[in-house]
Amino acid sequence: MSTQGTTSRLHSGPGLPADVLAELRGFVGDQHVLVHDGDVEPFSRDATPLFRARPDAVVLPATTAEVSAILALATRRGIPVTPRGAGSNLAAATIPEHGGIVLVLTRMNRVLEVSQGELLAVVQAGTTTATLADAAAAKGLLYAPDPGSRTVSTVAGNVAMCAGGLRGLKYGVTRNYVLGLEVVLPTGEVMRTGGRLWKDVAGYDLTRLLTGSEGTLAVITEITVGLLPMPATSSTGVAYFDNLSDAGRAVAQIIAQGTLPATLEFLDNRCVNAVEDYAQLGLDRQAGALLLFGDDGGPDVVAASLQRMADVCTDIGARGVTLAQDIAGSEALLYARRCSLPALARLAPITMLEDVTVPRPKLAEMVDTIDAITAKHDVTCATFGHAGDGNLHPTVVFDPGDGDARHRAEAAFDEIFHAAMALGGTITGEHGVGAAKRPWLAARLGPDQLALLKRIKTAFDPAGILNPGKLGS
Amino acid sequence: MSTQGTTSRLHSGPGLPADVLAELRGFVGDQHVLVHDGDVEPFSRDATPLFRARPDAVVLPATTAEVSAILALATRRGIPVTPRGAGSNLAAATIPEHGGIVLVLTRMNRVLEVSQGELLAVVQAGTTTATLADAAAAKGLLYAPDPGSRTVSTVAGNVAMCAGGLRGLKYGVTRNYVLGLEVVLPTGEVMRTGGRLWKDVAGYDLTRLLTGSEGTLAVITEITVGLLPMPATSSTGVAYFDNLSDAGRAVAQIIAQGTLPATLEFLDNRCVNAVEDYAQLGLDRQAGALLLFGDDGGPDVVAASLQRMADVCTDIGARGVTLAQDIAGSEALLYARRCSLPALARLAPITMLEDVTVPRPKLAEMVDTIDAITAKHDVTCATFGHAGDGNLHPTVVFDPGDGDARHRAEAAFDEIFHAAMALGGTITGEHGVGAAKRPWLAARLGPDQLALLKRIKTAFDPAGILNPGKLGS
Repeated sequence: MSTQGTTSRLHSGPGLPADVLAELRGFVGDQHVLVHDGDVEPFSRDATPLFRARPDAVVLPATTAEVSAILALATRRGIPVTPRGAGSNLAAATIPEHGGIVLVLTRMNRVLEVSQGELLAVVQAGTTTATLADAAAAKGLLYAPDPGSRTVSTVAGNVAMCAGGLRGLKYGVTRNYVLGLEVVLPTGEVMRTGGRLWKDVAGYDLTRLLTGSEGTLAVITEITVGLLPMPATSSTGVAYFDNLSDAGRAVAQIIAQGTLPATLEFLDNRCVNAVEDYAQLGLDRQAGALLLFGDDGGPDVVAASLQRMADVCTDIGARGVTLAQDIAGSEALLYARRCSLPALARLAPITMLEDVTVPRPKLAEMVDTIDAITAKHDVTCATFGHAGDGNLHPTVVFDPGDGDARHRAEAAFDEIFHAAMALGGTITGEHGVGAAKRPWLAARLGPDQLALLKRIKTAFDPAGILNPGKLGS
Repeated sequence: MSTQGTTSRLHSGPGLPADVLAELRGFVGDQHVLVHDGDVEPFSRDATPLFRARPDAVVLPATTAEVSAILALATRRGIPVTPRGAGSNLAAATIPEHGGIVLVLTRMNRVLEVSQGELLAVVQAGTTTATLADAAAAKGLLYAPDPGSRTVSTVAGNVAMCAGGLRGLKYGVTRNYVLGLEVVLPTGEVMRTGGRLWKDVAGYDLTRLLTGSEGTLAVITEITVGLLPMPATSSTGVAYFDNLSDAGRAVAQIIAQGTLPATLEFLDNRCVNAVEDYAQLGLDRQAGALLLFGDDGGPDVVAASLQRMADVCTDIGARGVTLAQDIAGSEALLYARRCSLPALARLAPITMLEDVTVPRPKLAEMVDTIDAITAKHDVTCATFGHAGDGNLHPTVVFDPGDGDARHRAEAAFDEIFHAAMALGGTITGEHGVGAAKRPWLAARLGPDQLALLKRIKTAFDPAGILNPGKLGS
């Protein structure tokens, strides 16, 4: 069934019927159903530039039972529902393109449990990633996934998008830490998948299927995540190279030596200069590439690991290598990476942050390709990202008032996505597909897999109400 | 739709129609289609005792295209197909209960690639786990999952069952290492899911959904797995405790100290004695529990980790603690765990190896419960397993000629499964559901989730030909 077929049965038109609004207000209370322009406007967009659509209503439930009642009603009446946490996603995954209800889970924000004995935490959907990480840290435990948006993003949002982050190489991504979920099907059934165990093979792995399903299969209301013992310490170093190719060789050599370090991040020359303009950190503006490397664990292990990585960088011919002397020094170095996006964002009104991923050995080749493509299209682009897992964030900035700038940026990204796929890579490593990457999903998956996605979608959501138009719709 | 409803449309009766056999022979060659009693008998059973069903034919394809042709034909004609690797699974997951074709993938057994740069390997479905591990080790890389059946089990079988193993606590299970799959849908479409990347969120996570789907959704023909740098060294120690409760406290304390070691395995007193009878290793026959602990990594880290764990065991009041002096000593200690199953198996003709998993702090309570239940039913049971992840293997032995021994064993297991679920555990941690655990799946998942599994099954397998009667059928 086509997107057309699914979504054409949905309610559309200005506003929701009065009786539906009355029911919604009955479920969650008048003050938690927003319909006025000023109230719903913040929920017509997320962190993705250029995408916007007004919902008919924004509904903020406080309990799983309320979520269930809302979804059952929506299925009964064919009303689109777009679940949303903080709206910090970068793929336009929470844009309510078909109107209807934006279902905001941020009132369900309690940390229900942190268990040292079981190395797990149980949180409600709207808990922020940082709140979860802090609650774990207070008991000496690490919640490993650390997406850039962690201070505002919600755990359910992280799960829905399978968020990544800076620790991916050593620790994996959100998927690797989701043990169990409480979800509500679009038809209203409340269901628990997985549980409190790292090992549990009873039934299809719905927990992992729901992770990364971008709010199209079910609404996540509660999450059980695995935690790790907190590493005793961590440290960071920085190396400058003449070009990305050398930085790539250093990364390969570090890993060939038997280390999967916690941090291997890179900035290209344009990004280094944008960060230096923004934050005056004393970075080497002439360097073709900056490589941040870091590790965590016991103090001796970390010291040895850092020295080994520094030695590799020196051997490869780095222009300069510096190891942080203490935690503050480490944080200062990491700041160069963390402020890349804000540094680039102030160059022009619109910042398009992309997320292609290629096999690790293709990293330098891909960055060269990005440079060639963006030059051809006369587009301003800088690239930073996760060198350890081949995850690049080419970032294009432009002024929408500048003629066909947007069109040129889009043309460049189209070529970049196809180039990444040609290198055995993917159109999105950690940001998701949403509405933003939808035009390239068929090229990535092929028609048979796209058809299978639609059949799976229907198995969960027969009326097609949940985040219509996105993955599997 | 019920199992009845799905399977009643399938072909049944003695043998396959002559034209179907002719087509199958045309696809794979006469010698790769087996139909005679003696030839198909080995494929009427797997490593699970008491389950047996004769297939109409055994077909051994050599290529993905052949798999596709066979499946398309089977869907067209409504013929059940049960995919199978080595048949080493312990859940009766490859028993062809509805006859039809057993599709054996063991001819497709090539290691296609081991990449040091990308830390991955690509293998055909029928490659054994040990062959993959050896090919990786030859390039200094570790394939982390290590199911007990690794010398015979196939990688596709491991993926289909989401096999676990002894390294689960530190390294996770098969699911954590599957990067990409080539699969054939029951309707014949060949499809690639995932790829060569650790980070890739384009589309639903079919790779993980297929992992653990027990051959009910698609036939896996090729697997891309992630590898790790090979740890420089590893070592093992053993501690004896008066009772399992003390061993459980040691495990909790070890983890509370911030270590997730590579090995934390236990044997109860009965298992210690069975192993000692079998192998004369000089184990402490009076001990209530034997705890094996081990770790891997750099030599200094491993030595410190082992000493720390030994100290914890001593502090808890272990009757004795020994650290292996070298690799040979380590292997000797691990042998006690590895020979538990053969040691127990020779006690009686039938060995029922179970696989309940409970939250780690409930381990000792669960073992006590198992002892009480098996005593009540007059059943001989010993328990060993993975203390680090709460995965227990209570093993019941009996003589089928001994009156109602089988009935008593089944009654005991029924109580054991319900007890595990009552403690927040599951009916299977790593062996799978298959036909063996099917009676308890509804209790574990509930009716809504079972119905969802069936809808997902139909999305992949509209004719219901693939491993009918198992998960989702």
